[in-house]
Amino acid sequence: MTELISLTRHAFLVDHLDTIPAIRHVLDVSFPTASKQIDQMIAAQEIEETPLELVRGGRPAKRYRYRADRFHGLALYLERTYLQYRIHDVGGHLIATDRLNFDSSDHGSVLSKTLTTLLDDHPSIQTLAIGVAGAVDTTGTILFAPDYPALDGRPLQQELTERFGRPVIVENDMNAAVRAQASDNNTTVYIYLGTNGPGAGLAVSGRVVRGAHHFAGEISFIPFDEKRNVGQVLATSSPHSDDWYEALSRIILSFSVTLNPDVILFTASDVSDDGLARLTDRCAKRFPLDKLPRLRQGDWETDYLDGLMQLSIQSFIEQIPLGGLTR
Amino acid sequence: MTELISLTRHAFLVDHLDTIPAIRHVLDVSFPTASKQIDQMIAAQEIEETPLELVRGGRPAKRYRYRADRFHGLALYLERTYLQYRIHDVGGHLIATDRLNFDSSDHGSVLSKTLTTLLDDHPSIQTLAIGVAGAVDTTGTILFAPDYPALDGRPLQQELTERFGRPVIVENDMNAAVRAQASDNNTTVYIYLGTNGPGAGLAVSGRVVRGAHHFAGEISFIPFDEKRNVGQVLATSSPHSDDWYEALSRIILSFSVTLNPDVILFTASDVSDDGLARLTDRCAKRFPLDKLPRLRQGDWETDYLDGLMQLSIQSFIEQIPLGGLTR
Repeated sequence: MTELISLTRHAFLVDHLDTIPAIRHVLDVSFPTASKQIDQMIAAQEIEETPLELVRGGRPAKRYRYRADRFHGLALYLERTYLQYRIHDVGGHLIATDRLNFDSSDHGSVLSKTLTTLLDDHPSIQTLAIGVAGAVDTTGTILFAPDYPALDGRPLQQELTERFGRPVIVENDMNAAVRAQASDNNTTVYIYLGTNGPGAGLAVSGRVVRGAHHFAGEISFIPFDEKRNVGQVLATSSPHSDDWYEALSRIILSFSVTLNPDVILFTASDVSDDGLARLTDRCAKRFPLDKLPRLRQGDWETDYLDGLMQLSIQSFIEQIPLGGLTR
Repeated sequence: MTELISLTRHAFLVDHLDTIPAIRHVLDVSFPTASKQIDQMIAAQEIEETPLELVRGGRPAKRYRYRADRFHGLALYLERTYLQYRIHDVGGHLIATDRLNFDSSDHGSVLSKTLTTLLDDHPSIQTLAIGVAGAVDTTGTILFAPDYPALDGRPLQQELTERFGRPVIVENDMNAAVRAQASDNNTTVYIYLGTNGPGAGLAVSGRVVRGAHHFAGEISFIPFDEKRNVGQVLATSSPHSDDWYEALSRIILSFSVTLNPDVILFTASDVSDDGLARLTDRCAKRFPLDKLPRLRQGDWETDYLDGLMQLSIQSFIEQIPLGGLTR
C-alpha cells in the first residue's frame, strides 16, 4: 500500500478527476510517474481507460474510470433493538440495504452473526464502518454505551478487524451523521434527542471534533438552572411543552456562543419545521438574530448511513492493498 | 515572493532547521534546488553560513543561520485608555516594549500617531499586528467594538496597510491571546472577564475558531436563567459572590459539553488559583470530573502580545519579499 495508490484513488473517487494531467497535478508527480501509476492500477483492475470521444480539433486527453463497482463496503449501525445496513460500492452507489429487528440484548453476538452472514453473502466487501450510540475513542473502543451493556468498554474496532480480516471503523452515531453534513468551510452541529438522552456531533471546517475526553456534544450536561441539566429537563418534560422548548433553546444558545456554527441540524422526527421557527424566535429574544446558526431539519437515518459510508470508502482508499482484498 | 522563500523562512524560524538536508526535506525539493534557494537567500542577506565545528570523523554538514536580527516586527494592542507594544525581531527576540497611556477617545488618531512615530524610529519593522477588543472579521474590519467608537465599522487592516506600506494584521484580543497558548493536538479556550463584558478565544487543533458570524466566544450571551444571560449576572454581581461563581461555572460547563476543550485559561487578574479550585469543585457537582477541562491561569498581557507577535512573524514569512522591505 503506497501513498500514491491512496492519492490516486482519492483523485478518482472523491475529486472525480479522470485524466493524467489532472491527476499528476494533485499527486504532485511528473507525467511519466502518474502514467506509470495509472498503468499499475489498470493491471490491478482498479482503473480502466474509457473510449475516446470524437472531438473537433486536436486529440483529446485519454480519460480513465475508476472501477468502483468492483469494490464494496459495508455501513451498518446498531440501535438497541434493530440494526440498519447499507452495502455500497466505493463510488457511493447502493448495492443493498436492509433493517433487521432483534430481541437479544447481547449486541456483540448480534453484530458478529450479522456481519458473518453479510460477508459470506458479499465477499466483495473490503471495509466496514459500524455506528454505535455511545462514546467511542479514536481507536474504536466503546468508552460509554448504556444502550449496549455487552459492548461497553470493549475494543470493538480491534476485535472486529481481527475477527473479519478487513479494516473496520467503529464510530459514534452523531459523529457519523455530522460527517455527512459537514463541509470544509462550515461549522456544523447535528443534534439528536434520542431515546436515552440527547447527543450532538460537531464538525469544524469539515473535521469532526471529539473533544479532549471524547465528550464534545454531551449536551445533556448543559446547565438548565442551578439544580437541573438540560438532559433532566428533556427527560421529564413532554415534547413541545414550554420546558422542552426552553431546553432546546439552551442547547442552541450554548453552541451559538461557543462554536457559533453555521448550521444546527435537528432530526425531522424530533423537531418539525414549525418547531424550528419557534426555536429561532425564542433564541432571538436573547441573542442577535443575525448571529444565530441556521436551524435545519436533517434526515438522521440517511445521514448516519452516509457518514458511515464515507468512513468505509475512506478506509478503502487508505488501507486496502492494490487490487483489493480477494476471498 | 515565491512559495520556496516562505517555506525556507518557516523551516528556519519556526521549525529551527539549519542544514540543507533537513531543509530540502520539508521543502520537498532536490538537494541542488534547496542549495540554490539557500544561496539566493544568503545573497539577500537573510541567511548566513555558520562556522564549521570541529567534529571527530567525517565532515559535518554545513550549518546555516537565519539573520533574524535584521528583520523586525511590531505587536501592539489598544485598550480604551492605553496601548502596549512590543518591537521584536522575526526570531521572536525582544527589541523594545512600552506602555503608553492616553486620554483621547479618538483611537484611530492615537493609533495612527503612535505607529508613525514607532515606524520612523524603527524603519527595520517589516510587519505589524494590531490587537483590539472587538469583533474583527478575517479581513481586519472592525465589526463591533463599543470600546472604540471611532474605529467601529472601519476596515482598519486595509487602512493601515495602505497608510504605512507594510503588511498589517488586525486581530481580536482573545483570538490573539489563545493563539499563544494553542497547540496542534489541543483544544484551548481563553477567557477574559474584561471591563466591558467577558470574551473568549477558541483554538481547535492549533487553529483559531471564529464562528460563522465571528461570534464564537461571545460568552456574555450564555443563558443563566430564563431572564438573564451570564453577561448580565457578571455585570451586576461582585467578584467571588455566589452568583459570580455560578456564572463562571456556566461558562466552563457550556464549553465542556460543546467543544470539550483540554484546557480553559482564565487571566490571573480575574481568577486566583484558589478560585479555579472552587470552580472545579462546583462544576464537578454536575459534570464528570474526569471529563472537565483543566482550568489554568494565564498571563493575559504576555499571551496577547505573544499571539500578536506570532501573527507579525507569520506575516513576514508569507508576505515580505526576498531581502525584506527597505526604507
